[in-house]
Amino acid sequence: MNRTTEQKFMDLLKEQSAYGEAIGLMAWDMRTKAPRKGIEGRSEVLGVLSQKVHEIQTSPEMREYIDELKGNVDDSVLERALEEAEETYDKTAKIPTDEYRAYVTLQSKAESMWAEAKENNDFESFRPYLEQLVEYNRKFAEYWGYKNHRYDALLHNYEPGVTVEVLDEVFPKVRKALTDLLNQTQEAPIQPDPSVLEGHFPKEKQAQFSEAILARMGYDFEAGRLDETVHPFAIGLNTNDVRVTTKYDEKDFRTAVFGTIHEGGHALYEQNINSKLAFTPLADGTSMGIHESQSLFWENFIARSKGFWKSHYELFKTYAPDSFQSLPLEKFYRAVNEVKPSLIRIEADELTYCLHIMVRYELEKALIGGEIEVKDLPELWNQKMKDYLGVVPENDAEGLLQDIHWSGGDFGYFPSYALGYMYAAQLDAKMRESIDVDKWVEAGDFKEIKNWLTQNVHQYGKMKKPLEIMNDVTGEGLNPDYLVHYLTEKYKKIYGF
Amino acid sequence: MNRTTEQKFMDLLKEQSAYGEAIGLMAWDMRTKAPRKGIEGRSEVLGVLSQKVHEIQTSPEMREYIDELKGNVDDSVLERALEEAEETYDKTAKIPTDEYRAYVTLQSKAESMWAEAKENNDFESFRPYLEQLVEYNRKFAEYWGYKNHRYDALLHNYEPGVTVEVLDEVFPKVRKALTDLLNQTQEAPIQPDPSVLEGHFPKEKQAQFSEAILARMGYDFEAGRLDETVHPFAIGLNTNDVRVTTKYDEKDFRTAVFGTIHEGGHALYEQNINSKLAFTPLADGTSMGIHESQSLFWENFIARSKGFWKSHYELFKTYAPDSFQSLPLEKFYRAVNEVKPSLIRIEADELTYCLHIMVRYELEKALIGGEIEVKDLPELWNQKMKDYLGVVPENDAEGLLQDIHWSGGDFGYFPSYALGYMYAAQLDAKMRESIDVDKWVEAGDFKEIKNWLTQNVHQYGKMKKPLEIMNDVTGEGLNPDYLVHYLTEKYKKIYGF
Repeated sequence: MNRTTEQKFMDLLKEQSAYGEAIGLMAWDMRTKAPRKGIEGRSEVLGVLSQKVHEIQTSPEMREYIDELKGNVDDSVLERALEEAEETYDKTAKIPTDEYRAYVTLQSKAESMWAEAKENNDFESFRPYLEQLVEYNRKFAEYWGYKNHRYDALLHNYEPGVTVEVLDEVFPKVRKALTDLLNQTQEAPIQPDPSVLEGHFPKEKQAQFSEAILARMGYDFEAGRLDETVHPFAIGLNTNDVRVTTKYDEKDFRTAVFGTIHEGGHALYEQNINSKLAFTPLADGTSMGIHESQSLFWENFIARSKGFWKSHYELFKTYAPDSFQSLPLEKFYRAVNEVKPSLIRIEADELTYCLHIMVRYELEKALIGGEIEVKDLPELWNQKMKDYLGVVPENDAEGLLQDIHWSGGDFGYFPSYALGYMYAAQLDAKMRESIDVDKWVEAGDFKEIKNWLTQNVHQYGKMKKPLEIMNDVTGEGLNPDYLVHYLTEKYKKIYGF
Repeated sequence: MNRTTEQKFMDLLKEQSAYGEAIGLMAWDMRTKAPRKGIEGRSEVLGVLSQKVHEIQTSPEMREYIDELKGNVDDSVLERALEEAEETYDKTAKIPTDEYRAYVTLQSKAESMWAEAKENNDFESFRPYLEQLVEYNRKFAEYWGYKNHRYDALLHNYEPGVTVEVLDEVFPKVRKALTDLLNQTQEAPIQPDPSVLEGHFPKEKQAQFSEAILARMGYDFEAGRLDETVHPFAIGLNTNDVRVTTKYDEKDFRTAVFGTIHEGGHALYEQNINSKLAFTPLADGTSMGIHESQSLFWENFIARSKGFWKSHYELFKTYAPDSFQSLPLEKFYRAVNEVKPSLIRIEADELTYCLHIMVRYELEKALIGGEIEVKDLPELWNQKMKDYLGVVPENDAEGLLQDIHWSGGDFGYFPSYALGYMYAAQLDAKMRESIDVDKWVEAGDFKEIKNWLTQNVHQYGKMKKPLEIMNDVTGEGLNPDYLVHYLTEKYKKIYGF
C-alpha cells in the first residue's frame, strides 16, 4: 500500500513529536529525579535527540511534502500543521548550518558560565558570552527579516503578531498607571503585615495541600503528576501526560502554593488541547504570552483573590501551623497581597511584576537594535530599576545576572510575561460577562471557570494565533486597560485609598 | 576536518546508545512514574525510537564501517565493539524486514493477550498467539543457524557459549541432587516456622531499610535511585545512572528486602562497568546468566546467610514490628530460609528455584525443536511440575501462564536464571579463596566483596563472554558442583539432617 503524501507528512510530524516527547521526559527527569552523576552522559543524549529534531524540521522530505500539499488540503488541522512546519522550516533553513551548530555550542557553554558568574557575582566573566549571544541574535534577526525593528524578528518567536510598535504604545501607558498605583500603596497609612505568614510548614503537608488545590482546579492526575524541583516548571510530554513541578520552602508556604497553582495553570492549558492535534506541532500552547495568561490567571486572579481564601482558608489551616488558627482571614488576605518594590523579578508581587519586565524589554530591544552594547548593561539596568521601581541592586547577581533567559540566547521572551498579565485580565473581564466567577471561586468550585478557559483558549492549541484568540474571545486585540482596572480596584480595597 | 572511519563508527554507536538511553528512561518512567493516561501515546514514541535503533544497527554505514575496520584496529575496545556490532548486524539482517515488523507487532499484541489470558485463566485465548511466536522463533533460529539443536540459536542470544549439549549434561545432574536435598528437608523433623515473620511493615520503614542496605552494598545513590513499582527491575540508563526499583508488601517484608538486594546486585554490576566502555554496546552486562549471578549472589549467598542477619538483624528490628524484638535470630534465620515446593517460580525458595527453571527449559527446548506443540503444553507443564516439585497447578494461571517471557517471544531466556545460580556459587567459592567472606558479612562490611566482584566481573561489561569470565576467574567453565555443595551445606545446617 502506498502512503499518500498527507500520511507521510503526518508520520514525519509524529516522528518529530516522538523525539520531542523523549527530550521532554529527559528534561523533566534531569530536573526532578536523575542522579547527579548521570547528568553528564544525559546531556550527550539530549544533544543527539535535539539534532534529530532539527534534521527532521529541515529535511528535504519536509520541504517536499510542504510544497506538494500547501494550498491543496481541505482539512484545517493539516493546513495549520503545514503552516507551522513551513514556518519552522524556513526559520531554521535561513540560518547557515555551521552558524547554527556554533550557536548551540555557545548556548550550552554560556548557560554554565552564567550560572558561575551569578554565583560569583562576576558579570565580567559572563560578558564575552553574552556579547556573542547578542551578536548571533542580531544576525539571526536579519536572516529572518522584519518590517520595522530588528527586535520584532525575535519577538515573533514568542508572541507572533506583537511588535515593538505595539509594546512601545502599551508598556509606557501601563508603566505610568502601575507607578502611580505603586506610590498610592506605599503611601497608604495601613500596610499589610507579612510577618503574620511566618511559621514552619512541613514539606509533606504543603505537598498534600498543593495536590488538593490542583485537583480542585481540574488538573487531571491520571494525565499528569506533581514533583519537587529547584526551579519549578510544567511540561507537556503528550496531551495525556502533562507534569507539574513545585518547590517547598518550609519557612514560606507561598512559594509552593502560588507556584503550584501557577504551574497548574500552564498544565491545564496543555491537558485540554484537543486530542486531534496530538502528535503534531499544534499540540502546544499557541504562544508564551497566552501560556503565561493561563498560569497568571490561576495564580493571581484566582488564588490571590479574597474569594479563593474564603473557600480555602479552612483547608489551608489544617495543613498550617497553629498560629494561623487565630489569624483572621482579612489579615491573611492582605498579607499575601502585600506590594513592595523589590530587586528580584520572580519574587515580585502582582503589581510590580510588569515593571521588572519593562526594564528587561527596553534593554534587550536596545541591545538587539544595536543602540546599546552589553558593556552598557550593568549601569543601565541599575538606572532603570531605580526609575521604575525605586530600588537599586547592590551587585549584578541580584541585578542583571538574576535571570537565566539571556544566557540561553532567549531575547524577545520577557515581554510574554507582561503580555500574559494583560491577556489574563482581558480574559477575566470577558469571562465575568457569562460566569459568576466570584460566586464559584467563593464556593471553591472551579469547573465552570476551567471549562470556559478550555472552551475559549485551551482546546485550540496552536490552531489559533495569540491575537486571533484574543479577538475571537474578547472582540478586541491586546488592551492593557483591563489589567490597570483590575489592579486599581484590587489594591484600592486592600490598601484603602 | 574529516573524521576517520573509527570516529564515524564510534559516533554511530554513540547515537545508538543515545536512543537506548531514551528508551530506557521511557521504560523506567512507564513502570514507576508515568500517569495512566499517558501510556498509550508513550508506546507510540517507544515504537519510533526502537525503530531508529533497528535502523542504525542494520544501516549501510554500519556495514561499511565494520567491513573497513574489522581486522584493522589495534584497540581492544574497538575490536570488541566491532564484533558486537557485526553480530547484531548479521542477526538482524538475516530476518526479512517484513517478518521482523510483523513479529514486533505480534509481540506487543501477544503480551496484552497473555495478560488477559492470565487474568481470566484462559490459556485457549492465548494459544494462537503463542503458536505464532513459537513459529517465528523456529524460523528465526533457522535463519540464524546452529550446529546441533535449533534451540541453541536462541540460547545464544542470552548466554553465548552455552548449548543444549551443556545444559542436558548439567541440568539432570543438578536436578537429581536438588530433588534429593528437597526430600531431606521435607522429611526433617524440625521445620522452620515462617509464621514468625508475620506482621505489619509500613512502607516508609521498608523503604528506609532498603535504602540503608543498598548503600551498605556499595550502591552509589549519586549514580542511581530507588523507586517503587509493580514488577521490580534494575535498569542502567548509562553507567552513571543505574536505577533500582522494588515493591513493598506491608504484610511481608521479604518481598522488598530480598527484592531490593536482588535488583541491587544487578545495579552494582552496571554501575561498575569500566567507563571507557560508555556509549558503546559493551557498556552492559555480558549475558543474562552473568547478570543473574550478580543479583542472586547478593540476594541469596549474602542476604540469606546467617552472617548477614547477624550484622543486620538489630537494624532490621528498628524498622520492624515489636514482635520481632523477642524473636531469636536463629528462628528468624530459619524462617527466611524455609524450603517448600510451590507453584510460582518468582516465589520459590533458593533450593526449588532451579527445578522451576528446568520445567521451562525442557518444554521450550522441545517446542522450538518441534518435538512438541503449544497445544501439548498444559498437560506437559503439569506433569513436569508433579515430577520435579511434587505439586500440580489447579489452573493454567498458576501454571504455564504465570510468566511473561513466552508472551514476548523470549525463548532461550529461562536457563539464564539457573546458570546464574551456578555461576554465583562458583564465584562465591572462588572469592572465598582470597577473602574472608563470612567475616566481612558478619561485620556488615561489603567493600571487599563488592571490589572483588568489580575486579573480576563488573568492570569488563561485554568485553568478555560469559564463559570467558568464568574461566578467567575460576579456572574452569560452568561447573554445577559448587551450587550443589553450597545448597547441601546450607540446608544440612538449617534442617539438621
